[in-house]
Amino acid sequence: MIRFDDERAFAQALDALPQPDDVAVAAAAARQTELTKPAGSLGRLEEIALFMAGWQGSARPALHKANIAVFAGNHGVAARGVSAFPVEVTEQMVGNFRVGGAAINQLATACGAELTVVPLDLDRPTGDIAREPAMTADECLAALNAGAAVVTPDTDLLLVGEMGIGNTTPAAALCLQAYGGSAEDWCGLGSGVDAGGVARKIAAVESAIAVHGPHCINPFETLRRLGGREIAAMAGAIMAARMLRVPVLLDGFICCAAIAPLVAAQPGFSAHCLAGHCSAEQAHAQLLDQFGMEPLLRLGMRLGEGSGAAVAVPLVRAALATHNGMATFVEAAVAAGL
Amino acid sequence: MIRFDDERAFAQALDALPQPDDVAVAAAAARQTELTKPAGSLGRLEEIALFMAGWQGSARPALHKANIAVFAGNHGVAARGVSAFPVEVTEQMVGNFRVGGAAINQLATACGAELTVVPLDLDRPTGDIAREPAMTADECLAALNAGAAVVTPDTDLLLVGEMGIGNTTPAAALCLQAYGGSAEDWCGLGSGVDAGGVARKIAAVESAIAVHGPHCINPFETLRRLGGREIAAMAGAIMAARMLRVPVLLDGFICCAAIAPLVAAQPGFSAHCLAGHCSAEQAHAQLLDQFGMEPLLRLGMRLGEGSGAAVAVPLVRAALATHNGMATFVEAAVAAGL
Repeated sequence: MIRFDDERAFAQALDALPQPDDVAVAAAAARQTELTKPAGSLGRLEEIALFMAGWQGSARPALHKANIAVFAGNHGVAARGVSAFPVEVTEQMVGNFRVGGAAINQLATACGAELTVVPLDLDRPTGDIAREPAMTADECLAALNAGAAVVTPDTDLLLVGEMGIGNTTPAAALCLQAYGGSAEDWCGLGSGVDAGGVARKIAAVESAIAVHGPHCINPFETLRRLGGREIAAMAGAIMAARMLRVPVLLDGFICCAAIAPLVAAQPGFSAHCLAGHCSAEQAHAQLLDQFGMEPLLRLGMRLGEGSGAAVAVPLVRAALATHNGMATFVEAAVAAGL
Repeated sequence: MIRFDDERAFAQALDALPQPDDVAVAAAAARQTELTKPAGSLGRLEEIALFMAGWQGSARPALHKANIAVFAGNHGVAARGVSAFPVEVTEQMVGNFRVGGAAINQLATACGAELTVVPLDLDRPTGDIAREPAMTADECLAALNAGAAVVTPDTDLLLVGEMGIGNTTPAAALCLQAYGGSAEDWCGLGSGVDAGGVARKIAAVESAIAVHGPHCINPFETLRRLGGREIAAMAGAIMAARMLRVPVLLDGFICCAAIAPLVAAQPGFSAHCLAGHCSAEQAHAQLLDQFGMEPLLRLGMRLGEGSGAAVAVPLVRAALATHNGMATFVEAAVAAGL
């Protein structure tokens, strides 16, 4: 299990990321040329199988244990009226996760994944990023480690999701800090806020960057100042997954914004991740472009909870089922093409 | 079970298509507004649930029995060198389907669907469409009925796929006849033919339209002259599904080309279908545009066999799992949004 002792340990891990197993990738690619199908005809399914081969270090990658971790946090900035929902909904939805009533419960069951729900100090919202850091260094480290703690070495595929009323605001601030542009570029409708809410979100993000921008000297400090507990937990989980060579299926805007400081600092950071779904939240497509990632799905979802990634899990299963289960031309006595 | 007694019965069925149950759709839509999520936040999953509700006539649609029917046929036009594979491969692949070695076997298992394989007179290729009709009227009727025969009223979702070396050529001819343009517009690389093969395909399609075009006076005659046995079988299956209100998940270019004459004659024909996947075969995107359909997946697959549609089945399962399984705001004691 991964645990970061301090901010420095987190920074060092980012500078020493393990890489995929090229030998396994080559062996998997060689197998694909022998399977009973025209070369390349399974499209992205073939890419997914090679991706899984590289991170699992096996020419025959498997998906026995898929784990979805949903982190929940509350945000001081929510008091500025940036969301369509009252802050109590974060805790109410955690209750809904616990009794199995939310979208992610149904999707986890449907895709054969385990679901872990991790509420993070919901009674202590983070600081209002428009005027103060979201967290102290100790709080940020605790959140990173709460994320890292969910990642076991036997996990074949990790998904992370979130619940946190108001969290598209810190997500937008993280993107603006990482990739520039204007606050408008990164602020959308979230869960369905009105025009006034969007305007308040933009103002909060502009203020946050004015206050914290010059101090965002590394990913830890950026997450601490502009993020939130569930956001830092997602970053910690995805970092821990990399350290354990566990492949990750990314969810929507908040999930991707959580690693924006890491990808901006270390462009290869997201190599162990696939983008599961591109959200209807406009900024998500921009962010995936910055990451150089093409999402597996574009279904217009914008729910969070890990829901977009969960819908993509069966694509990984389809990729591995064909890669591992198909006969070769020789085995099936089928003539290969020209 | 549906059986067409003659060509006229087929034409009459096309003029008397059943429509979705609007009451069930309205009830399903009302339920969606009560579920614990921001309105509309499940995107296309919500549309899929309403689609299934309409065709199943239930506010709580189900997916117990998904059936994939793969039809195989051989084509006289293949002798013109339009494919990257020898014609023996059609029968060899049917053997591979029977022993479970093909992509569609793995994908059917992965998505929880039954698989039915229907070889159609493989030792009697159709006529060469570049100079003669593919089938006699009796042969075409038999193929339509072979397709219709796989559709049982208890099927919750039907997928049809095909195997037939050379069959992108009749598919291109069907599209050109239905929607115009040039032969080049509808002729692509198929299973991976070289430039000479594409040129021979274009020439065959141009010749086929010159010979048969003036005689393609209705969908039956178009399928008979320009199609093939597996193509007519797919059309018959999708027609029978409509008559039994069984929703259909369309596969790739050949599958969609099979219904092009029906959609061109009766634009509402594809209302009981969802486009599962847009193929890498360039003409498929054009054809889906003509149908006014947005595919669920774009994974660059181009294998046939029903494989693209099979990968989309879990999206239907995800849609129904959330629609049927989620708690309402009242049940979960979650505050609704603004």
